[in-house]
Amino acid sequence: MIVDVSLRPGIADPEGATIERALPALGFTGVRAVRAGKTFRLVIDAPDEATALERARALAERLLSNPVIEDATVRAGES
Amino acid sequence: MIVDVSLRPGIADPEGATIERALPALGFTGVRAVRAGKTFRLVIDAPDEATALERARALAERLLSNPVIEDATVRAGES
Repeated sequence: MIVDVSLRPGIADPEGATIERALPALGFTGVRAVRAGKTFRLVIDAPDEATALERARALAERLLSNPVIEDATVRAGES
Repeated sequence: MIVDVSLRPGIADPEGATIERALPALGFTGVRAVRAGKTFRLVIDAPDEATALERARALAERLLSNPVIEDATVRAGES
């Protein structure tokens, strides 16, 4: 399972902003809207994929993200 | 463009290990092989998608990841 955690739109992203500001000096122009996020890859032992997805979703929302400022999305994928 | 940066196989991942260790006490069992990574979403102004992908790849390898311990993969995707 792959859990993507990204800042909600409108929430300030200092890491992304810093990268974006640094890029032109490093030779990369035309790059904008840089947003940093986190990804967690994990294996869930479950009887079927639907159950695994459901558990991953609960885990993502309750533990891996802060729902006040972040969105978590879950997808099946190799770990 | 979406840039995924993950630790290479075999490189210790203290964040993932800490999450994995904490999960049973929090009610999640059967979760293993937790690995933490980073994701960067960005918009690249380029004449076509192939050029944008190429620039994103250069940026990912040179600036967004540490090639000694991390793998970076780039894919097209909404920012």
